[in-house]
Amino acid sequence: MELVTPRPFKNISESRTETLQLVHPTHTNVLGSLFGGQLVQWVDITASLAAMRHAGASVVTASIDALHFHTPIYVGEAVILKSQVNEAFKTSMEVGVRVEIEDPRHPERGRRCATTAYLTFVALDEHGKPCEVPALVADNPRDQNRQKRAQERRKLRQNARGEALEEVS
Amino acid sequence: MELVTPRPFKNISESRTETLQLVHPTHTNVLGSLFGGQLVQWVDITASLAAMRHAGASVVTASIDALHFHTPIYVGEAVILKSQVNEAFKTSMEVGVRVEIEDPRHPERGRRCATTAYLTFVALDEHGKPCEVPALVADNPRDQNRQKRAQERRKLRQNARGEALEEVS
Amino acid sequence: MELVTPRPFKNISESRTETLQLVHPTHTNVLGSLFGGQLVQWVDITASLAAMRHAGASVVTASIDALHFHTPIYVGEAVILKSQVNEAFKTSMEVGVRVEIEDPRHPERGRRCATTAYLTFVALDEHGKPCEVPALVADNPRDQNRQKRAQERRKLRQNARGEALEEVS
Amino acid sequence: MELVTPRPFKNISESRTETLQLVHPTHTNVLGSLFGGQLVQWVDITASLAAMRHAGASVVTASIDALHFHTPIYVGEAVILKSQVNEAFKTSMEVGVRVEIEDPRHPERGRRCATTAYLTFVALDEHGKPCEVPALVADNPRDQNRQKRAQERRKLRQNARGEALEEVS
Amino acid sequence: MELVTPRPFKNISESRTETLQLVHPTHTNVLGSLFGGQLVQWVDITASLAAMRHAGASVVTASIDALHFHTPIYVGEAVILKSQVNEAFKTSMEVGVRVEIEDPRHPERGRRCATTAYLTFVALDEHGKPCEVPALVADNPRDQNRQKRAQERRKLRQNARGEALEEVS
Amino acid sequence: MELVTPRPFKNISESRTETLQLVHPTHTNVLGSLFGGQLVQWVDITASLAAMRHAGASVVTASIDALHFHTPIYVGEAVILKSQVNEAFKTSMEVGVRVEIEDPRHPERGRRCATTAYLTFVALDEHGKPCEVPALVADNPRDQNRQKRAQERRKLRQNARGEALEEVS
Repeated sequence: MELVTPRPFKNISESRTETLQLVHPTHTNVLGSLFGGQLVQWVDITASLAAMRHAGASVVTASIDALHFHTPIYVGEAVILKSQVNEAFKTSMEVGVRVEIEDPRHPERGRRCATTAYLTFVALDEHGKPCEVPALVADNPRDQNRQKRAQERRKLRQNARGEALEEVS
Repeated sequence: MELVTPRPFKNISESRTETLQLVHPTHTNVLGSLFGGQLVQWVDITASLAAMRHAGASVVTASIDALHFHTPIYVGEAVILKSQVNEAFKTSMEVGVRVEIEDPRHPERGRRCATTAYLTFVALDEHGKPCEVPALVADNPRDQNRQKRAQERRKLRQNARGEALEEVS
Repeated sequence: MELVTPRPFKNISESRTETLQLVHPTHTNVLGSLFGGQLVQWVDITASLAAMRHAGASVVTASIDALHFHTPIYVGEAVILKSQVNEAFKTSMEVGVRVEIEDPRHPERGRRCATTAYLTFVALDEHGKPCEVPALVADNPRDQNRQKRAQERRKLRQNARGEALEEVS
Repeated sequence: MELVTPRPFKNISESRTETLQLVHPTHTNVLGSLFGGQLVQWVDITASLAAMRHAGASVVTASIDALHFHTPIYVGEAVILKSQVNEAFKTSMEVGVRVEIEDPRHPERGRRCATTAYLTFVALDEHGKPCEVPALVADNPRDQNRQKRAQERRKLRQNARGEALEEVS
Repeated sequence: MELVTPRPFKNISESRTETLQLVHPTHTNVLGSLFGGQLVQWVDITASLAAMRHAGASVVTASIDALHFHTPIYVGEAVILKSQVNEAFKTSMEVGVRVEIEDPRHPERGRRCATTAYLTFVALDEHGKPCEVPALVADNPRDQNRQKRAQERRKLRQNARGEALEEVS
Repeated sequence: MELVTPRPFKNISESRTETLQLVHPTHTNVLGSLFGGQLVQWVDITASLAAMRHAGASVVTASIDALHFHTPIYVGEAVILKSQVNEAFKTSMEVGVRVEIEDPRHPERGRRCATTAYLTFVALDEHGKPCEVPALVADNPRDQNRQKRAQERRKLRQNARGEALEEVS
C-alpha cells in the first residue's frame, strides 16, 4: 500500500501583490508619455512577485498572453499595479495584472484603468528545472469565476500556440 | 460624379526592421539571465519601428497580443530582433516579432529562436488622434499566409477582449 | 466683520502610501548588496507620494532628517516601502517611511525592518511658490503620538539647523 | 609585560574627496529640476569615498543623519560635491558633504550652495564584519571645531535614536 | 621536419554587423539632442560585435582612433550603426563604424550620415590574455582599398602614440 | 578709422576640470570589468565641462580624435578624470583628458593611468550656431608645449579627415 502526500494548496489572496511607480521624465517615449516598454517591465515584475509568492520558488516568465494599453500615462502620475495568480497548473501559473493611474495631487478624483494583462510563469527549483507548484483554491464566487476563465484561456492558448510557431518568419 | 482617392498601399518588405542588442550585466534578472521585462522593451521598440515605417506616422502600442519566451538568454549573447507588419487594418496594424540569439564569438554555431510575439499598434496624426494607415500588400505566398493568419487572430482577439475586460479585478 | 475660511484638514490615513521594488543586479553596490543610494531614491519617491496626497499639490524634498540602514538587502528580495505624513506645518510636512524586506519565495518567513526615515517636504503651487497645506488630524492614540513626536523633532531640528549651516566647509 | 600597538591615525585632509556631475534630462523629476533621489545617490557615493579613504577598508552607509536641499538644480548645471570625514569613532565615521552648483558656461558667476549633509559609515573587514578605523587628527582650529561638533551631534543622535525606533509604525 | 598550421582566415563580410536604436528622451544631453556619450556607447557595442565575429573570441576596446559627429540627432529618430573589421593584425583588429539616421515615419526621405569612426580591439583568450585572430581576406577592390587604408592608418597611429603618451599631464 | 575689439583670452588653468566616478556593477561589460562605452561617456562629460568653462557657451562634441584604454578597470575602483583645453581655434577647442584609477581603500598605493584622450568641441551661441571662443594663453613651458602639440595634431587631422570620409562604406 502506497502513501500519497496530498498536493499542498494556497488561496488566491496569498499571492496578491501591489506595486506603485511614479512616472519620471526618464520613463517617457518619443511622444512624451510613458514608454510602453517601461510599463511592461513594471507589469512583469509585479506579476512575477505574485507567482513567486504562490509557488514558494523562483519563477521565469513563459509568456505574455495578452496586455492591453487603454490610455496614455503622463509624467507625474502614479502607476499602481495589482496582480494575483488566477490559476495554478502543474508547474506553471496564469497571473492577472491590472494597472490603475492616479494623480497623487488629486487622489479624490479617482483612478482610471490603464492596462490589463495576463502572463504565464513557470516555477523553477534550485537547479533551474521546472517544479510543481501548490494547487490554487478560490474560496469565493468572484475568484472561482477568475479561476474558471483562466482554465478556458489556457485551452485557447494551447490550440493557438502550435499554429503561431510555424508561421513567424 | 465623385472622385475617390484610392487608399495608398505598401509591401510587407517596406516595414521589415532588424535591431540587435548585446546583453550586459545591467540587463540581468535575479537569476542572472536576461530580464524578461528588458527583452520586452526591445521587442516593443523593434515592433514600433516596423509600424512607423508602414504607417508613415507616429504610433502607440495598443496591445501585446502574445509573446512567448522559449529559452533563457545570457550575458555576452547577441539578441537579434526582426519585425514586420503582418496586416494593416484601418488605423491599426498587427506586427510580428521574432527574436534570435547568437553567440557573437561563435556565429558559425547558428542562432536559436528565443521569443516570438504579436503586437498591435495604432497610428497617430500630429494632433495625437488615430489616423488611417496605408493598405498592406503581400506579394508572395508566404506573406499572403502571414496576412491571412493576422486577420484570423484579429477576429479571435475581438471576441476574447470583451470578456477579458469584465473579469480583471 | 471678516469671514475666515477654516483651514481644511485630512486624516493621516489619507496620505498612507505603499510601494514595492524587486532588487535586480543593476541595483547593487560594490559589495554586491543593494546600493544605499538606490534605496534612498525609492524612499524619497514613496515619501513624496504621501506628501502629495496630503498637500493636494506638487512637493519638493526639503530635507532628509534621519534615515537609518539596519540591515543589508540582497538581489531577489522584495523591498516594501510604507510612508505617511506625520505632521503638517504651514507649507511643509514631515513624512515617516518604514522599509521592510521580504523573500517573495518565502512570504511565510515574515519581513525584517531594513530602514526607517523622516523627511520634510514643501508644497508648491502652480507658480512653484510654497503654498499652504491642509491641517493633519490624528484620530487615534497611535497617530496622536506620532504627531506629537513630529512636533518635538521639528523643534530640535530648528535649533540644530542654524549651527549646521555655519560649520560645513 | 604587554606591548600595546598605538592606534593608527590620519588627518582630515587625507579623506577629502570631490566629485562632479553634469545634470542631464534623464536626472530630472516631475517638476523638471534635478530629482532629489538622484542627488542623494551622488551624495552617498561622494561620502563613501571619503569614508573608504580614511578607513582603508570597504564601508557601508549606516545612516543619513541630516541632508538639506537649499535650492532647485537645473539641466545643464554642474553639481560639485565635496566630502571629508569629520570624526572617526571605533568602527564608524561621520562624513560631511557640501554640494555646490556652477553654471559651467559662466564659472565667473560663482557657485551657490545647494545641499549640506551628514552621513555615518561603518568600516567592514574582508569578512563583512565591522572593523576598527584609524583615529582622526584635526590639525587646525577649523578642523578641530568640525571634529568637536561631530562628537556633539553623535551624542544627540544616540539619544534620539532609541525613541525613533519605537515609534515608526 | 616541422608541420606548420596555416593561419585561418575570414572575409570582411563575415564580420559585418548592423544595430539600430530609437532615440528616447532619456538619451538626450543638456541641449535636448542625442548625448554624444550615449552614441559612443552604441558605436562601441556595434564595433565590438564585428570584432568578436571575426576573432571568434572575446574582445576589449584598445582605442577609439577617430570618431566624428557630423550632425545632431533628435528624439524619435532611428540610429542605424554599421560596422566591419577593416584589417586584422596579430591579436588586434581595426573596425570601421558608420552611423546613419532615419526618420522612421519617413523612410522614403532617406538617411543622413551622422558619425564615422575607427576603433581598435584586442582579442582575449579564456584566461584574459591577448590571442591571435584569423587573417582578413578582402575579396573585392573596395574591401582591398579599405584594408590598405587601415594598414596606413595603423602606421600613422604607431608613430603618433609614443608622443601622445608623454605629453598628457 | 576702425576700432577693433581685441579677442578675449583665458588661461589653460581656467578650464581645468576634475570629475570622479565609483565603478558599480551596473557599469560592467560582458567580461565583468568597466564597460568601455561607459568610460567614454564620463570622458565626454569631463571634456565638455572644460570646453564650456573656456568657451563661456554651450558646446557640442565634434570628434574624439584619439582615446586609448591602457588597462582594465574593476568594480569598486574610483575613476578620476582630468581635462583641460589644450588649444582654442576660432569656434572649436581641443580638449585633453587623462583618466587615473585609485583603489579608494588604498589611496597610499597610488594611481595608475587608465586612459588618455583628445576630443574636439565646437561652441554654440543661443541659436545653436557656432560662435567664437576666447583665445587660449599658455603661461608656462609645459602648457606652451601642450598648445604647440595641439596645433600640430590639428594639421594632421585636417589632412587625414578628407581621406577618411571617402572610404567608410
